Amino acid sequence: MSKIKIFDTTLRDGEQSPGVNLNKAEKLEIAKQLERYGVDILEAGFPASSKGDFEAVKLIADTIQDTSVTGLARTRKEDIDIAWDALKGSAEPRLHLFLATSPIHMEYKLKMTPEEVLNTSVEMVKYARQKFPQVEWSAEDATRSDWDFLVQIIEDVINAGATVINIPDTTGYTTPGEYGSLFQYLRDHVSNIDKVSLSSHCHDDLGMAVANSIAAVENGATQVEGSINGIGERAGNASLEEVAVALKVRSDYYKYSTRLKLEETKRTSDLVAKLTGMYVQANKAIVGRNAFAHESGIHQDGMLKNKQTYEIMTPEMVGMNSDSLFMGKHSGRHAFGDKLKEFGMELNQDELKEAFKQFKLLTDRKKEVTDDDLYTIVMEIKTDTSAISKYELESFQVQYGTTNIPTATVALKNPSGKQVEAACTGQGSVEALYETLDELIEEDLHLIDYQINSVGGGKDALAESHVQLKINGEPVNGRGSAQDVIEASANAFLNAVNRYLINQNTKSKKEVVK
Amino acid sequence: MSKIKIFDTTLRDGEQSPGVNLNKAEKLEIAKQLERYGVDILEAGFPASSKGDFEAVKLIADTIQDTSVTGLARTRKEDIDIAWDALKGSAEPRLHLFLATSPIHMEYKLKMTPEEVLNTSVEMVKYARQKFPQVEWSAEDATRSDWDFLVQIIEDVINAGATVINIPDTTGYTTPGEYGSLFQYLRDHVSNIDKVSLSSHCHDDLGMAVANSIAAVENGATQVEGSINGIGERAGNASLEEVAVALKVRSDYYKYSTRLKLEETKRTSDLVAKLTGMYVQANKAIVGRNAFAHESGIHQDGMLKNKQTYEIMTPEMVGMNSDSLFMGKHSGRHAFGDKLKEFGMELNQDELKEAFKQFKLLTDRKKEVTDDDLYTIVMEIKTDTSAISKYELESFQVQYGTTNIPTATVALKNPSGKQVEAACTGQGSVEALYETLDELIEEDLHLIDYQINSVGGGKDALAESHVQLKINGEPVNGRGSAQDVIEASANAFLNAVNRYLINQNTKSKKEVVK
Repeated sequence: MSKIKIFDTTLRDGEQSPGVNLNKAEKLEIAKQLERYGVDILEAGFPASSKGDFEAVKLIADTIQDTSVTGLARTRKEDIDIAWDALKGSAEPRLHLFLATSPIHMEYKLKMTPEEVLNTSVEMVKYARQKFPQVEWSAEDATRSDWDFLVQIIEDVINAGATVINIPDTTGYTTPGEYGSLFQYLRDHVSNIDKVSLSSHCHDDLGMAVANSIAAVENGATQVEGSINGIGERAGNASLEEVAVALKVRSDYYKYSTRLKLEETKRTSDLVAKLTGMYVQANKAIVGRNAFAHESGIHQDGMLKNKQTYEIMTPEMVGMNSDSLFMGKHSGRHAFGDKLKEFGMELNQDELKEAFKQFKLLTDRKKEVTDDDLYTIVMEIKTDTSAISKYELESFQVQYGTTNIPTATVALKNPSGKQVEAACTGQGSVEALYETLDELIEEDLHLIDYQINSVGGGKDALAESHVQLKINGEPVNGRGSAQDVIEASANAFLNAVNRYLINQNTKSKKEVVK
Repeated sequence: MSKIKIFDTTLRDGEQSPGVNLNKAEKLEIAKQLERYGVDILEAGFPASSKGDFEAVKLIADTIQDTSVTGLARTRKEDIDIAWDALKGSAEPRLHLFLATSPIHMEYKLKMTPEEVLNTSVEMVKYARQKFPQVEWSAEDATRSDWDFLVQIIEDVINAGATVINIPDTTGYTTPGEYGSLFQYLRDHVSNIDKVSLSSHCHDDLGMAVANSIAAVENGATQVEGSINGIGERAGNASLEEVAVALKVRSDYYKYSTRLKLEETKRTSDLVAKLTGMYVQANKAIVGRNAFAHESGIHQDGMLKNKQTYEIMTPEMVGMNSDSLFMGKHSGRHAFGDKLKEFGMELNQDELKEAFKQFKLLTDRKKEVTDDDLYTIVMEIKTDTSAISKYELESFQVQYGTTNIPTATVALKNPSGKQVEAACTGQGSVEALYETLDELIEEDLHLIDYQINSVGGGKDALAESHVQLKINGEPVNGRGSAQDVIEASANAFLNAVNRYLINQNTKSKKEVVK
């Protein structure tokens, strides 16, 4: 079994999903879970793109130990310098440099000749290697590039010191046969190819990112890039959990394995979905709600006779046992703390106290507190940024009826600490509520998208709401959970506004690049 | 360009998705849209499985003209006879017979020897061909079957009169290389293979259903089976829209085309999502909300310079322009009717009157009525089954506040026409509402799952709710839409209860098979 390295870009390419906007604390929680999951390399962001990205990459680089942390950079000295500042504290500083090699990108986007692209790449790889022991170079839009130009530039950047060569299918254009052939061609024609790791990076625009990634592996790639739940630009990246499970389940056919702890798959997927608001569909492979559900009578009959008739892997293999009950109202703080440790969550004393308080509140209202509920509570605490002054919900009420006018009344504490109150009507309860919040908040607000979901089933399930607002022209997302849909909606709206304020606070200092 | 036939099983394998339970009217609307989309063959159900399925298949077979309609049957005379009764009125009656050929299925599920499986298949294909001009035979779990046994049984069922041979990857186990080789092997070893169409049928458990389907096509399959949005058992079937678009976009590489009208893709996807409650994730290829969205600064910059830098297909190609505004409060009935015709929707006079009324009501409350809104309204009308006496919501009100106890008051007309009222509290507004409905409804109810989504963005967007209930032990789903989240939730709950009552009404007559 050859070991394939898993390069996770959930926090960089994944975070480029429209409407996703993670803060530092959220990124760190995802990074810690990725480390627990066992990913080999973790792309934490694009340090030169903004102050916020820089800080998140630095925090993750300084914290994560068992996974190599990398950051993206354009082929510019200042990008490399900023990335070095962010990454130098990591266990094995690693840079990810990219420059496009396809005719259309070179001509229209870069306005550079192939020679300029080649020379810039070589020069910047050399420059980067003065700082970084590991430098990955990506040929952006490689699958629409001239193969012989790729051979030439790859040979030269390897001579310049690149340690990993990545061949991205940036637009999700390739097919398994074509992508496999490209890897084979490069291995046959790049004379010094054995000095580096070859990497795949696939997008799912035609629904084939996973198969393309595996085709690359069959043709010599030793690293696979992708994201959890396949999130990313447009249709997203190759879904890492699908790649890893396919290699595992078909180990009779594919002679490759990863070092991922597959039993952490479901938890990793849930965390990413929760924090990004990018929910997976019920029929998503491996981690969808239905992925292990058998519906038809014929299938159920087969499952009763022998599970292997319709099951090629067990739900337990990927940590799918979220129905397991957790604890009830009589559970003590000690048992509670032990359970969190089982999850691999580290809380300080204050956080633990707050989590236990919220757990107790929930047990008063909900008979069965599940692992999912608990995870939601803890994540809210771990990703809270209450240090910055912002809007706080004091109280609110909503009246809705088919025969009266929906009305909301809200009392808020605003960032200057003053209590403000208003009441508004709307066509529905959430509209009335959002009109009232809008009236009380000083920024210019425009609601782009609103979602609400329940965590688990049952009438008393937690509701989780995600909103996307445009605040003073800038898109910001927010999430909130509560046992009530209206309250969860209020929390999500305020969360977006507060995230905007926090962001403004940080950003005002320095904007690194546009 | 070889033409590849598209065999859609959204209404059979797709409808086997856990929690999905379409009624006759809903199935017919989906079938009509599939006909407009241009699918070659449409599997409408499994007629022998229940009276409801039988009736839906018959209605679709009698209605649809441009698409060949088929139905599933086990290798049993009674299944074939029932299927014939359902399908004989169709333009080209077509049967889909299946029997498992893998060792594990034969030994544990069927408890039959390979010889028995072979003889039964041959006998039942012969029997079916006495009625049906077209008979497809499927080797269930083909990808885990002995290849030489497949060669033998396929040769024999072709001699018995099968016109299509389907090679299902029932458990979603295969890989592109392996599946392609299997098709090649069958073409090389089954002496009479040229007499039939070869078909692929892939499941997405390892995320490779689309690539596997195309690998089959590259190795001689001339028919691809799958579903819209890839719904189906577990992780679902191959997503037909992804297969078709991949062949189209990469027509330089793949020399195959389909006769799908790709510009109907988005509408087909939306309809299936709406009626099944199986929403697609934002990063779903082709039809996801983000599939054509570009987020990072670098990508946006490229798009401004030349769209082809990051776009391999246009959103218009697949009918993605749902943001287009529709009409406002001054639009007349005539313009309204014309717009519906543009959609390809046929409404009778009563339905048109009702749709226009609801449209006018909506324009009073909502500034911009979109195509999506209109589609939601029309679909509610087309799939209504108001003939059967059931629960009707007379009025309700809900009060929610952070400082008081959530309370709902509901007045219902019950199936016997009597008005009943109750008020209950709950931990949240939906819980209070559902407690009250539960109290007023006589059946034994248990809520399994609750979802709510907004149709489009904005504070005044329509809300669409899906619930899954267990009613007297039987799973039933329901959906409802309204401009308010609470009202949509009430509608969905009652819809599930009413669907159960309607179903009981029909089913009490005859249960065909368990």
